[in-house]
Amino acid sequence: MVDLDERKKVEVCFSPYLFPLYKEEFEIIVVIDVLRATSAICAAFQNGVKELIPVSTVEEAQDYQKKGFLVGAERQGQIVEGFDFGNSPFSYMRPDFKGQTIVLSTTNGTKSINIAKESGRVVIGALSNLDVLKEWLVKQDKNVLCLCSGWQNKFNLEDTICAGAILDHMLSTGQYRSEEDASIAAKYLFLSAKDNILGYLKASSHRRRLKNLNLNEDIKYCLTPNTCPVIPILDDDRLISVGIDSII
Amino acid sequence: MVDLDERKKVEVCFSPYLFPLYKEEFEIIVVIDVLRATSAICAAFQNGVKELIPVSTVEEAQDYQKKGFLVGAERQGQIVEGFDFGNSPFSYMRPDFKGQTIVLSTTNGTKSINIAKESGRVVIGALSNLDVLKEWLVKQDKNVLCLCSGWQNKFNLEDTICAGAILDHMLSTGQYRSEEDASIAAKYLFLSAKDNILGYLKASSHRRRLKNLNLNEDIKYCLTPNTCPVIPILDDDRLISVGIDSII
Repeated sequence: MVDLDERKKVEVCFSPYLFPLYKEEFEIIVVIDVLRATSAICAAFQNGVKELIPVSTVEEAQDYQKKGFLVGAERQGQIVEGFDFGNSPFSYMRPDFKGQTIVLSTTNGTKSINIAKESGRVVIGALSNLDVLKEWLVKQDKNVLCLCSGWQNKFNLEDTICAGAILDHMLSTGQYRSEEDASIAAKYLFLSAKDNILGYLKASSHRRRLKNLNLNEDIKYCLTPNTCPVIPILDDDRLISVGIDSII
Repeated sequence: MVDLDERKKVEVCFSPYLFPLYKEEFEIIVVIDVLRATSAICAAFQNGVKELIPVSTVEEAQDYQKKGFLVGAERQGQIVEGFDFGNSPFSYMRPDFKGQTIVLSTTNGTKSINIAKESGRVVIGALSNLDVLKEWLVKQDKNVLCLCSGWQNKFNLEDTICAGAILDHMLSTGQYRSEEDASIAAKYLFLSAKDNILGYLKASSHRRRLKNLNLNEDIKYCLTPNTCPVIPILDDDRLISVGIDSII
């Protein structure tokens, strides 16, 4: 059957584990890890960090540490022993980070980035950069996959709602289409959550997990939309921040 | 951390592909393939079929055919060449099927059954047996996983909504709990769909797929709740129908 619909596609993948099922060519992959990796990355750029190197393993992070880099590492919601910071967005607001190169390894987020970069151009998505990201994506006119980082390979609610918000906006332009049920579900979940995201996510398992670690301030920050109007994209192996008008 | 909550769990797994991530012990696994395998199975029992043997491959189905069994096989929504029926519920309403043993192989549904049976007791779920199934599950007081068959390993909307309906009822008794975000999402999706399931699923990809195959009557039948008050469970390698008051 010939596909007569020439609009570009925007779809949602619920977790990195499901990523191999998405065989089509997606030119842009939006990596989302709202609690907290991609929110932290947006906070870093908003606060003047020059570039950020995402690494998958703690060992890689240690190698960069030995070379004198500023390195953060988080596992299971907590800072890994021997590192100065993890993925709390607030730890990226230090004045001495301005203009610096930062290295970061987190449980889910940086792994997703490294899986995604083999397939398409990686862009960082969070609720904190939602509106500028949506506008920027529409301008690109490319096939887009929103890759949720999830929690230990499973679906999570906050990443899906963020993906649903992006998709809902892109579809509303008439310039894009979605075919997958996962994408439709993400949109439905966003639409029922949008008037009260904090309340809607009260039951989310990851929120409960972080609350048990006394990370309430982090949660509130990460779930507040549009605090960081930045577009971090992966250039080679480093994230840099590009302007809203740039076309890649 | 000691788990002081002694309530049994009920969770939702979006597709067989994600099933390996659910390591906990689930004593009962509800296999759901609304469009159309589990709806067809419920229709078969409602219409007097004695037992139904689910097989994964077309080859196994052919072996049974050679032995003289009544055998159905479906792939990609269509009857496989050489077989008399696929997984249209209407094909199980033949009077000559009463009291018979039927063999069936389908794209997604029977595969899920065969994956699930290694882990727990398999029960068949569909919208067509929703209310009796919900009541029966509550009586069992066991850990329950609703396994959606999905479409080619991906999430699908109709199975998830059916799973969400089961979960919503079980949680409402106060006797069960859910911890996974996938389960919470299934419940949210059911709650927003429940007043108009047909309309809600208008955009679902599998519905579009079947519509293109002129299977509108099948869709309408499969999405109508409570047409078949039966509880098909797997006993050894065969599905049989048990009474609503039975405890397994």
